[in-house]
Amino acid sequence: MIGVGIMGYGTVGSGVAEVLSMNAASITQKAGCQIEVKKILDLRDFPGDPNEGKLTKDFQDILKDESIQIVVETMGGLHPAYEFVKQALEADKNVVTSNKLLVAEKGDELLQIAKEHQRNFFFEASVGGGIPILWPLYECLAANEVTEIAGILNGTTNFMLNKMIEEKMTFDDALALAQKLGYAERDPSADIDGHDACRKICILAALAFGNHIYPQDVYCEGLRNVTLEDVATAAAMDSVIKLIGHAKKCDDGRVAIGVYPMVLKQQCLLTHVSDVFNAVQVKGNAVGDVMFYGPGAGKLPTASAVVGDVIDAAKHVSMNKSPVWAPAKEGSIVPQENVESAFVLRFSCDCDVTPAVHAIFGDVQYVYREGAPANELAFVTPVLSEKVLQEKIKQLAGATLISSLRFGTL
Amino acid sequence: MIGVGIMGYGTVGSGVAEVLSMNAASITQKAGCQIEVKKILDLRDFPGDPNEGKLTKDFQDILKDESIQIVVETMGGLHPAYEFVKQALEADKNVVTSNKLLVAEKGDELLQIAKEHQRNFFFEASVGGGIPILWPLYECLAANEVTEIAGILNGTTNFMLNKMIEEKMTFDDALALAQKLGYAERDPSADIDGHDACRKICILAALAFGNHIYPQDVYCEGLRNVTLEDVATAAAMDSVIKLIGHAKKCDDGRVAIGVYPMVLKQQCLLTHVSDVFNAVQVKGNAVGDVMFYGPGAGKLPTASAVVGDVIDAAKHVSMNKSPVWAPAKEGSIVPQENVESAFVLRFSCDCDVTPAVHAIFGDVQYVYREGAPANELAFVTPVLSEKVLQEKIKQLAGATLISSLRFGTL
Repeated sequence: MIGVGIMGYGTVGSGVAEVLSMNAASITQKAGCQIEVKKILDLRDFPGDPNEGKLTKDFQDILKDESIQIVVETMGGLHPAYEFVKQALEADKNVVTSNKLLVAEKGDELLQIAKEHQRNFFFEASVGGGIPILWPLYECLAANEVTEIAGILNGTTNFMLNKMIEEKMTFDDALALAQKLGYAERDPSADIDGHDACRKICILAALAFGNHIYPQDVYCEGLRNVTLEDVATAAAMDSVIKLIGHAKKCDDGRVAIGVYPMVLKQQCLLTHVSDVFNAVQVKGNAVGDVMFYGPGAGKLPTASAVVGDVIDAAKHVSMNKSPVWAPAKEGSIVPQENVESAFVLRFSCDCDVTPAVHAIFGDVQYVYREGAPANELAFVTPVLSEKVLQEKIKQLAGATLISSLRFGTL
Repeated sequence: MIGVGIMGYGTVGSGVAEVLSMNAASITQKAGCQIEVKKILDLRDFPGDPNEGKLTKDFQDILKDESIQIVVETMGGLHPAYEFVKQALEADKNVVTSNKLLVAEKGDELLQIAKEHQRNFFFEASVGGGIPILWPLYECLAANEVTEIAGILNGTTNFMLNKMIEEKMTFDDALALAQKLGYAERDPSADIDGHDACRKICILAALAFGNHIYPQDVYCEGLRNVTLEDVATAAAMDSVIKLIGHAKKCDDGRVAIGVYPMVLKQQCLLTHVSDVFNAVQVKGNAVGDVMFYGPGAGKLPTASAVVGDVIDAAKHVSMNKSPVWAPAKEGSIVPQENVESAFVLRFSCDCDVTPAVHAIFGDVQYVYREGAPANELAFVTPVLSEKVLQEKIKQLAGATLISSLRFGTL
């Protein structure tokens, strides 16, 4: 029998207890031993809960319980999750977490501690919820040099974009609906400003490219500026807008990484990822493109990933098999202004600026959306850097930029 | 250093050697030791090949080489692959294979031998080519009871269907093109009659549900009877036809399993899997639906999966971590005639049979395709078993069945 301590009895934590109980027989078989929740840490009371007797408000009750060999961290937030996880690893316990903020901020350090103690720090649930993505990337694709990762990493914003695209709902209405359905928090910033997706692309990039990447070092543009006019412009190009977390290894070894709304051609499979689903596409130098798709959040899907890691930890209870990655490296990220892309630009024009557009931008492709004002001009630029783009936009007299979106195929 | 012996130096085998050499540095780092191809078994000569000096025509050279701890089987076919793999496992070597026929016919036995010898028998490449699917199913989704698996498991037929759907190419022309491009063999039966997909769904079902399933026990309907009229009928329903390998755990514990063309609604993500790509969708009782997508064949993609397994074997060179499944169980497969589905039926009618259709089939949904002959009647039935369907079709006087296709959402 292997004892589990759960820290944080919210949505995910209670889902973990539920899945462990619901599939107990098959989990025992797969783990090779019984897995039992011994204690649950939460400051709240849960009167009448089936696990009421296991609840404690004192972390020491988990830390000092020698029967607990696996600690599940589903508290969220950086503190005290970080301190608790670190102490658990140092006390020779395995840790499984769903906490993307913790991994994105402290992953390198915690993985190193796990390695030194021959224990594991697992975090499959931190990216893509229930979708198996981190282990497949780390183990199944180990034969590859991974060159690029792109994903729809936030279900809330994907749901909102879907409503804007399919039902012409405004951003504000889509956000209100997402909040009503419980997808978005009262303060929706982590979702709509891209921070949630940013943490996840940082974790994916660290795992694939070998160095920790801090979210604060990554360009992150959310959904706030995307309008129904942008959606219609994309539609006129047989494309849709998706919020993409994107990381690419450059030839010089640096990583171009960012989160931004992107206009994607319909032939990209990612454009067909609808509702709150997530998907991650990985490019390897042997395999080419593979994609992983599924529910990116939710109680039982996220618990599925956590419990998958718990089973793995139970099978390797005193044998380190976690990945490790090196600390963040100065200068390893390409400054966003140097990252190249094609762009879809939309201008409000005082006069016919098309001769100037050609002179400045070269070979552009015009986009005509139905219902556009007569003085609107939209076009796709050749591939250029953000820095060059800004210079060219400044040169274009008689036209005011309305919106600018990256465009491409993934 | 861990020595590898490759049996079969064809497309996949030479791809394995190429990937091991191309990504040697990162593979060494991930495996924790150098992995070196020591010998290659093939009856053919490869003058001028970079690995010419490693070639042998005698299996004993691999079997008796104690430096070879991992044997890669990429010969294909059942014999002598089976005998060689068995002997290699019995000689305490790990085996990695891409051979779906071998796994579908002998998987239970070979996994058992591997377990008894504390060695591994790995076969990620046998399903979905380069797509990570078997390990994610077995390890990452271990917290789930898997209830259903559906996939596009054969790239050649998916390519052909795409040509029929997108370019209105006939079956024969699409097959000729697939052969010209090297996707289909001169004898295309394994692809177009569904045998290849059948082996793969058998492997997936064995891994998910725990008992070996022989392809010969599984209903297998290929693509030969699918016409452009069927494709147009599906299009009139905002659907497309895909060749689907499908396995579902029933409430009574039996497995409904088969390969057949299926009319799928556009909202199914599987309908957007184009060209020679493969995709596998898995339903788990905690996670819900997840999907794995990527290149289902090809030299380097398949080698990516084989070498991924080689690295895993190198990390567990004398520790069994392969799955095991039990031998095939009599009566565990639902007879196909009892498997329920909605069907799209197309009839040629001598008279107005719609009153009889309603009397016999109940609430049907008619389908009108552009350009259909005046006497054609197409409709979607309620969900019923194949057996009941056949009885009802017989009852319908004055109408000759042209085609019958399963219909649903996955």
